[in-house]
Amino acid sequence: MAKGITKRSEDYARWYLDVIAAAKLADYAPVKGCMVIRPNGFAIWERMQAELDRMFKEAGHVNAYFPLFIPESFMKKEAEHVEGFAPECAVVTHGGGKKLEEPLMVRPTSETIIWSMYKDWIQSYRDLPILINQWANVVRWEMRTRLFLRTMEFLWQEGHTAHATYDEAQQETLTILEIYRTFAEDFMAMPVITGVKSEKEKFAGALKTYAIEAMMQDRRALQAGTSHNLGQNFAKAFDVTFQDQNSKLQYVWATSWGVSTRLIGGLIMSHSDDNGLVLPPKLAPIEVVVIPIWRSDEERTAVLDRLHSLTRNWTNQFRFKVDDRENYRPGWKFNQWEKEGVPLRIEMGPKDLESNEVIMVRRDTGEKNRVPQDSIADRIRETLQSIQQDLFDRAVTFREANTHRCDDYAELKQRLEEEGGFYYVHWNGERESEDRLQEETRATIRVLPTEQPDEAGKCILTGEASERRVLVAKAY
Amino acid sequence: MAKGITKRSEDYARWYLDVIAAAKLADYAPVKGCMVIRPNGFAIWERMQAELDRMFKEAGHVNAYFPLFIPESFMKKEAEHVEGFAPECAVVTHGGGKKLEEPLMVRPTSETIIWSMYKDWIQSYRDLPILINQWANVVRWEMRTRLFLRTMEFLWQEGHTAHATYDEAQQETLTILEIYRTFAEDFMAMPVITGVKSEKEKFAGALKTYAIEAMMQDRRALQAGTSHNLGQNFAKAFDVTFQDQNSKLQYVWATSWGVSTRLIGGLIMSHSDDNGLVLPPKLAPIEVVVIPIWRSDEERTAVLDRLHSLTRNWTNQFRFKVDDRENYRPGWKFNQWEKEGVPLRIEMGPKDLESNEVIMVRRDTGEKNRVPQDSIADRIRETLQSIQQDLFDRAVTFREANTHRCDDYAELKQRLEEEGGFYYVHWNGERESEDRLQEETRATIRVLPTEQPDEAGKCILTGEASERRVLVAKAY
Repeated sequence: MAKGITKRSEDYARWYLDVIAAAKLADYAPVKGCMVIRPNGFAIWERMQAELDRMFKEAGHVNAYFPLFIPESFMKKEAEHVEGFAPECAVVTHGGGKKLEEPLMVRPTSETIIWSMYKDWIQSYRDLPILINQWANVVRWEMRTRLFLRTMEFLWQEGHTAHATYDEAQQETLTILEIYRTFAEDFMAMPVITGVKSEKEKFAGALKTYAIEAMMQDRRALQAGTSHNLGQNFAKAFDVTFQDQNSKLQYVWATSWGVSTRLIGGLIMSHSDDNGLVLPPKLAPIEVVVIPIWRSDEERTAVLDRLHSLTRNWTNQFRFKVDDRENYRPGWKFNQWEKEGVPLRIEMGPKDLESNEVIMVRRDTGEKNRVPQDSIADRIRETLQSIQQDLFDRAVTFREANTHRCDDYAELKQRLEEEGGFYYVHWNGERESEDRLQEETRATIRVLPTEQPDEAGKCILTGEASERRVLVAKAY
Repeated sequence: MAKGITKRSEDYARWYLDVIAAAKLADYAPVKGCMVIRPNGFAIWERMQAELDRMFKEAGHVNAYFPLFIPESFMKKEAEHVEGFAPECAVVTHGGGKKLEEPLMVRPTSETIIWSMYKDWIQSYRDLPILINQWANVVRWEMRTRLFLRTMEFLWQEGHTAHATYDEAQQETLTILEIYRTFAEDFMAMPVITGVKSEKEKFAGALKTYAIEAMMQDRRALQAGTSHNLGQNFAKAFDVTFQDQNSKLQYVWATSWGVSTRLIGGLIMSHSDDNGLVLPPKLAPIEVVVIPIWRSDEERTAVLDRLHSLTRNWTNQFRFKVDDRENYRPGWKFNQWEKEGVPLRIEMGPKDLESNEVIMVRRDTGEKNRVPQDSIADRIRETLQSIQQDLFDRAVTFREANTHRCDDYAELKQRLEEEGGFYYVHWNGERESEDRLQEETRATIRVLPTEQPDEAGKCILTGEASERRVLVAKAY
């Protein structure tokens, strides 16, 4: 096992922090609960941003930027919203050396400031829809923080759209949920369950909250993205109306949706192992690292010359790096790049010059192969595709092996305690039993899954009638 | 003149705000001094970010993210720095419903928080250089704000590098200054004077501050980017040392540098006219707008069909948009896209189907040409290049026509008052005369220009000896 990385089986929480430190992804900052995203971590976020931004734009969205500060009075306009977020806010009371007349909240999310602007921008049905996204930092005062998963300040994107009808807003909510599912599965290689949240768990101010939920390697759930149908709640709070095609004034319909740097935590906990970070190729800042091996200056020149001609055409094909540093030994480099999660390693030494081969090593499996130099680019391309697919398949297999149907509450409690995992159980739909479940098991209803069929049954807590199963798990 | 846009000659300050409103670039936010960057404005910022980010990375830099909040005690560690920035800070005193033990400053710039981290990251010469950039929001409490040019919160990039020697840090400072000059001139088509700031005008905590200065259309100067050699000031304040190759402990050398959304203000004021925004093609989110003209459904189908085949291969060549909206008339569209600054407009109507031509109109000059459809892509490419070059040339000509050498203080005062412009004058290098100049003329020494030759002369204020001329102007 890699030096400095605790085994998952020993202490999963410490393993997670060790992987982050070994791969130089992030550090705790001097301000309690804040995080520094180091270059290796930020490069992953940049890859995520690029792909998500492309998908949002292909679906017709544009980016904008709204202020960091929200007047306290704005937060209070939507009753559920202020109740949910005000206790978590950081508050600016002084500026420019003076006490402010009205305190400013550092945005925990931007619905209120954005809808105060939409009031000016929307008059007629011609002004709709508005499909705006923002990449920004937000602050939520958290007592128990964990790098990437829960920090006081985090980076995210927040979409805020305005529509003429409920149906359009609902369609947008589901379109984004599908973009999130696609991104999680096709890019992060992280399978997710989609579904709608219970009333208790929905966003403060939403009509309905949809989410994607993934299983981490410790069998806990991670809520990885949410998409909210906000109904007319914010339009009413900020008095945003439009004249429809019949010249009738109507309140505007809204959605909001977001994913954050929390995704990096999900990525780490989906694939990494006791040797460090494992990255799916599509999000790896470096897909291939090439390590030349030499013992003399002469060998060094010969190997680097060959590598130079071998990698000449790679620039538009792969994100790669030739690690030709002289003050580190090959073994040290193997170890370092392994910890940093680079999907493929190519080694080439003096003997390979004669045999016209290289050694290719997969980070995810450790599988080692000799590959002819004249077919190396094709083999890299194929292998990167295999790694991407295999990571996804393994995560699906793991999740399926740890997902159960359960109809007995005593059994559920025991299994949640002893083995964790996902449980499909019947629930009567009442807040009271949801509260009791959480109190007694520390697990929560993650979602009412989209893909669960109707199935008559009895609530696992009360024995009352239930029409469908819900997904229960302990969560981050 | 365009409806709703004040003429420059009538009221330049109002013209500027009218252009921003007409092009939908930004709005004032509910919080005094804060700005909402609307999608059209943000798309320009995204183009700027993409090009600058590419240039920084080509020069070996990586991105990272440091926290928004800085403990008050950190700000105080570098004496000049705290004096310069503390009065401008927004202060968080409460979080999570409680009063904080130590107030947190919202970052006005990130030297202190970053150097507190560099202390952990740097031990040996092997850890150097560190070449980190951050894209972030910062807050500086401003009383007199103006959209893009001076707002309480703004977006920027801030580079923070760490080096083993003074020479390396100085080289980095100048490398970045050259990147800024290249970006301003080659992408923004905005000619700049580079140089070093006086002691009075340098960054709080820097050894030397370099800047790029541009002339706006009202003949005022705009400081558009700064690059600081910070010496060992922050390393000493945060006790950041490294073991050099002789195992001797040394303080680390630092630089920092930044450009902000202020560049968008500079872009507007460099090229726009009484009809609205004018954008250089390289930074225009849309380079070409195509407007079909029809009177019947039949004509509409025929024109759109032809346009479809004409623009089929444009996707990888130009950023373009076909405005085929049915509920707006062509004249309204011409006007709207003119206000939004799209460099080239193509018009095609039923008659053009027979003549196999289109009409092409330049935004910058209004020049209108008939162009054969079979050479349209080439003509667009050439014309976009011409526009880019012509905007730059016109800005250079304007600046040269309004730049003067002056050796008489009474004349300088009068001309600054009556006509504005840039003045190269002799100065004795003393703070006292610099203060007097500013007090009496409201102009400042912008830079000691890089490209001014040595030239013996007499200080325009005191008559004392001077070895070179400095650049004086009223500035934003």
